[in-house]
Amino acid sequence: MSAYWSDFVKTLDPYVPGEQPKQTDLIKLNTNESPFAPSPAVLDAIRQATADQLRLYPSPESDRLRAAVARYYDLSEDQVFPGNGSDEVLAHLFLGLFRHQGKQILFPDITYSFYPVYCRLYDIDYQNVALADDFSIRLQDYLALPPETVSAVIFPNPNAPTGMAIGRDEIEQLLIQRPQWVVAVDEAYVDFGAQSCVPLIKKYKNLVVLQTLSKSRSLAGLRVGFAFAQPELLEGLVRVKNSFNSYPVDRLAEAGAIAAFEDQSYFEQTTREIVQTREQLSEAMRALGFTVLPSKANFIFVSHSQYDAAQLLASLRSHAILVRHFRHPRIASFLRVTIGTKKQCETLIKSLSEIVS
Amino acid sequence: MSAYWSDFVKTLDPYVPGEQPKQTDLIKLNTNESPFAPSPAVLDAIRQATADQLRLYPSPESDRLRAAVARYYDLSEDQVFPGNGSDEVLAHLFLGLFRHQGKQILFPDITYSFYPVYCRLYDIDYQNVALADDFSIRLQDYLALPPETVSAVIFPNPNAPTGMAIGRDEIEQLLIQRPQWVVAVDEAYVDFGAQSCVPLIKKYKNLVVLQTLSKSRSLAGLRVGFAFAQPELLEGLVRVKNSFNSYPVDRLAEAGAIAAFEDQSYFEQTTREIVQTREQLSEAMRALGFTVLPSKANFIFVSHSQYDAAQLLASLRSHAILVRHFRHPRIASFLRVTIGTKKQCETLIKSLSEIVS
Repeated sequence: MSAYWSDFVKTLDPYVPGEQPKQTDLIKLNTNESPFAPSPAVLDAIRQATADQLRLYPSPESDRLRAAVARYYDLSEDQVFPGNGSDEVLAHLFLGLFRHQGKQILFPDITYSFYPVYCRLYDIDYQNVALADDFSIRLQDYLALPPETVSAVIFPNPNAPTGMAIGRDEIEQLLIQRPQWVVAVDEAYVDFGAQSCVPLIKKYKNLVVLQTLSKSRSLAGLRVGFAFAQPELLEGLVRVKNSFNSYPVDRLAEAGAIAAFEDQSYFEQTTREIVQTREQLSEAMRALGFTVLPSKANFIFVSHSQYDAAQLLASLRSHAILVRHFRHPRIASFLRVTIGTKKQCETLIKSLSEIVS
Repeated sequence: MSAYWSDFVKTLDPYVPGEQPKQTDLIKLNTNESPFAPSPAVLDAIRQATADQLRLYPSPESDRLRAAVARYYDLSEDQVFPGNGSDEVLAHLFLGLFRHQGKQILFPDITYSFYPVYCRLYDIDYQNVALADDFSIRLQDYLALPPETVSAVIFPNPNAPTGMAIGRDEIEQLLIQRPQWVVAVDEAYVDFGAQSCVPLIKKYKNLVVLQTLSKSRSLAGLRVGFAFAQPELLEGLVRVKNSFNSYPVDRLAEAGAIAAFEDQSYFEQTTREIVQTREQLSEAMRALGFTVLPSKANFIFVSHSQYDAAQLLASLRSHAILVRHFRHPRIASFLRVTIGTKKQCETLIKSLSEIVS
């Protein structure tokens, strides 16, 4: 601790991302990356962009990227807000929309563990709403709270780290019944089988949808994410962004991201394969005695009544397989396992059958 | 304005970057980019990185980049803090070190116009200290203020948009006489002839130096910047960064930045040429009747007693040449002109001689 730090910095409790090992012979199922390389068209677009004008600043608002994504989702360009990964977009969302004197925001007790970190960074009051006993998000529990003390709700759909999704209709009911709340749906994992709320953007001025290229587009290393919302609401994020960093998305990231949205068949093929592998892996894990929550994401959340999760994690590590464990008491018996290639998942099952037999 | 915005968002006055025109046949001397392409080694490194593991998250702390830069400057790795452009690093600096209850930060009245924007974003009290009549920064004016109400000082060296530099010895005196202040030296333009304070990092625990690859390394489109300081102070920025975005520097930016620091001869050759061109351009402008402030940057700051700056800017635009003008009353008669190639600067002089004759 240093006397030079701003007063609040000592109270921060920074987010801890999953391990990024330097060792390259591990099967890495711990940070929900795609097991597939990005589309070859993305790599081509980046190579072409390097020959281009890297000496010049990028477009401050990533105009070409916004246009490409607007076309893809049938939105207008001013309904698209890009950032340096969806974590940056989330940070601007928390600061730009969630800080209202005397009001709280709501999010699940078991969810993306960056949300409370942003709250501490920006001094935002929040309340956790417990997941149901089956680990599902129950929006009626949010509706049961006094609406006037709340400014916003945020949850991932599918939720992390459970992988469980709720339907668009249910979210639409929340949008209708609480028009005074911002409803932020974090769709980092939506492309693996859940329903996106993007088609609701035009209808509800209190909806924000967040997405990322890190999972279903195989581009975690490129750092591109988005918020989608009506322009008036999004302007709040634009004002924060332009008070923070004029050029958050670099030229190569913009070029690669555009190409990623243009190669629809590669996207469909790779996400379909991940979904198939997820179902096969879930079945094989159940056969080994694991409880597997019903996942719509590119990971599964599993526990075994006879084996301690932290010990299973250590055993898998000794088999050169990385998975993730979270300290929260409600989920201490669970492991989160990213869906790898079919072959990686077979190796995982082989190792697990040795460990739990 | 939207009721969904956080209360403070309506009071923001976002930074306005120089125009990034879509038209490509303009001579672009308005945003201090390099007229030279990045080193071929940088482009190679990026192309090789694309074949690599873009599906995986980058190193959260950009370990390889920190090691390369530490080697380059003879620092330790924990004295190097990379970010998504030096603007992001500045933002974390303001939030992480400059917000102290009941204290102000100090910066010049004429300086990088993003500083007051960060203050508004993060609710930081500041006081402007006027430049001397000759537009130089006079550190004795900072020392004359009551030290107990101040937490930090920040200024660019060379200053922007004047281009004027002060010596390292003078800054060292400030570090010695105000050990309780953070002294942040923004060296965005230092590589064009000013003295860097990086060699002082080991000696002073209250010093932070900021640098960028956007100017002297020809990589404005890649978005990489740094803070250098002793680890205890830098840890304040690390905590803010890890409460904001775990992975701010993407894999391609990291690869390109490493290569940029490794190609010393290209760096020396291109910066030397810019310095030569700056001196030639300054002389030619003086011959046309312009006042030219003594610049150590990759731009010059000029005014003409008989021609209005805004009108000159418009006339140059009609000659397909972009330069920059700032609204602040003290410098309303000045234009900032980025140093282009020798040929671009010859074209500029030719156009100006038509305009002012």
